[in-house]
Amino acid sequence: MYDLQALIERCLQGDKLATARLISLIERGDPATPFILERIYPHTGQAYTIGITGPPGAGKSTLLDRLVQKFCSQQYAVGVIAVDPASPFAGGALLGDRIRMKFDRRNQDCFFRSMSAGKAMGGLARATQDVARVLEASGRRIILIETVGVGQSELDVAKATDTVLVVLTPDAGDSIQVMKAGLLEIADVYAINKSDRPGADSLSLALQGMLDRKAMIDAGPSWRPPICPTSAAFGHGVRNLYESLWSHHDHLQKNSMLEERRKSRLKEELLKKIEEELARVVGKDLLCKVEAAGGLDDVWARKVDPLTMARRIVAARFEERADAKNFPGD
Amino acid sequence: MYDLQALIERCLQGDKLATARLISLIERGDPATPFILERIYPHTGQAYTIGITGPPGAGKSTLLDRLVQKFCSQQYAVGVIAVDPASPFAGGALLGDRIRMKFDRRNQDCFFRSMSAGKAMGGLARATQDVARVLEASGRRIILIETVGVGQSELDVAKATDTVLVVLTPDAGDSIQVMKAGLLEIADVYAINKSDRPGADSLSLALQGMLDRKAMIDAGPSWRPPICPTSAAFGHGVRNLYESLWSHHDHLQKNSMLEERRKSRLKEELLKKIEEELARVVGKDLLCKVEAAGGLDDVWARKVDPLTMARRIVAARFEERADAKNFPGD
Repeated sequence: MYDLQALIERCLQGDKLATARLISLIERGDPATPFILERIYPHTGQAYTIGITGPPGAGKSTLLDRLVQKFCSQQYAVGVIAVDPASPFAGGALLGDRIRMKFDRRNQDCFFRSMSAGKAMGGLARATQDVARVLEASGRRIILIETVGVGQSELDVAKATDTVLVVLTPDAGDSIQVMKAGLLEIADVYAINKSDRPGADSLSLALQGMLDRKAMIDAGPSWRPPICPTSAAFGHGVRNLYESLWSHHDHLQKNSMLEERRKSRLKEELLKKIEEELARVVGKDLLCKVEAAGGLDDVWARKVDPLTMARRIVAARFEERADAKNFPGD
Repeated sequence: MYDLQALIERCLQGDKLATARLISLIERGDPATPFILERIYPHTGQAYTIGITGPPGAGKSTLLDRLVQKFCSQQYAVGVIAVDPASPFAGGALLGDRIRMKFDRRNQDCFFRSMSAGKAMGGLARATQDVARVLEASGRRIILIETVGVGQSELDVAKATDTVLVVLTPDAGDSIQVMKAGLLEIADVYAINKSDRPGADSLSLALQGMLDRKAMIDAGPSWRPPICPTSAAFGHGVRNLYESLWSHHDHLQKNSMLEERRKSRLKEELLKKIEEELARVVGKDLLCKVEAAGGLDDVWARKVDPLTMARRIVAARFEERADAKNFPGD
């Protein structure tokens, strides 16, 4: 354990190598993970996290690169987590590598980490969350999390941040897709990248229309997501985007929504962990009981369907249902 | 409820419209879902399910189309579930539509259903499983489930079948990807589609090599996945592939592995349902308790990390740990 202790100490002092090794341990679900997270946790909770998502090919990584430079130029210690698509067919790793190279050359105070959605143990959102905590504990104050907007789990990752930046391009197709992908619900700031291309204005107009409609429905302290035209390749509009991100941060803070958001996220996390613990401590145990009582055979014989059987078992265990009597073996 | 009863009756008699409506209810997580599944379940468990997966653009849908024709020509009632990628950006719907059109024109006794991974309530694998059961209850004896091999959840769907067909193409890149994607572990039959293109032989050789290595490691009644060159567009090699699928089915049956596979899948499903029930019945309740006891505040104040808190709560509830005492409020 001593070595692990030392690793954690060095991570807390900002040692990049130690940080990287801790992250690797967590990523592969090492048994030491709970211990690591327990020690790390007290040093977390203050970093400003930004989720960046959007369709493949929107130029997210280039835009991310520009934003990182901006943050670094303002003396912020930046951490980046780029979630690669799960499938190797999608060539996600390549994406990661491309960014990493750039960073290592240019930014001294940016820690870049590429994660494969496929490898993530115990759910992508959770793994990303844990890695982000290690990064924060190692002294990162700004944490950027990039996910390709494919798949619910990727969107969940983006959602679990303070500010969600949705990157679109004129050629990424009409704004209907934004709604279909559920991006309209989570976007705090829009960037229309490659805005030098035709169709940028019509996309912007379509988005404005959607935001108008949304504004009519929504209640509460209203934040209208700004739409920032950018051209990451040439570095156009990046400064404006950078300021839009901060203004959303300030808006959250002014209305004490930052704390609300983080608290409710923490509450969700706690609930999920409780459920996982229940599964670990009680779940298998109940399965053995029901199997011993011939319950599995009944399901196999099509006498009872799995859900009904599951409800009986749990009800029998917690005496909360009348039909608990029907539980085989009771 | 009467209407629902009637729907289920008509589904059991093979009515396609009723079947489609039941599936829609299940897909959108209608409250009637448990009731439907309970009534449907006794009529399931016999269908032969085949999972078809592989990289995008491998020509899976065309090959699937050919296989369906083959099955139908042998007087099998076929059901097809095509799982579209979660993201609208990926244009999954289009894929679904393309197949559907073909089917409606050509096959009278095929029921086609396209599902969006994004919409699937309560997990993709689970939703697909439920839909497959409805299809079987409506009289389908062969059920083909197509998923794009992107993302773990898609692979899980393919895995939850009797026979897994992995479709590759020479231009889909080297066989390393197969291993990276975890396809080597789940493939029962390989199809090298577009085998008229260059690289087909070298891909076949590479696969053979991987299978040789795997064969040296694996134990148990050994099935060596055949590698079938096909050219779906021209219908070449489809018959051979069709027979390879059946020979795997027969192999499973001969060695009573078909029953084993299905039983262990059912056991997994039961465990999952038990865990979901535990979460539903106990989880929220525990969260309220711990919140009332100020546990959430302690987590928020970084005094305890979420996992440790979760363990205390569950331990306190089930008195299985000494540190249960530390649980706030106890």
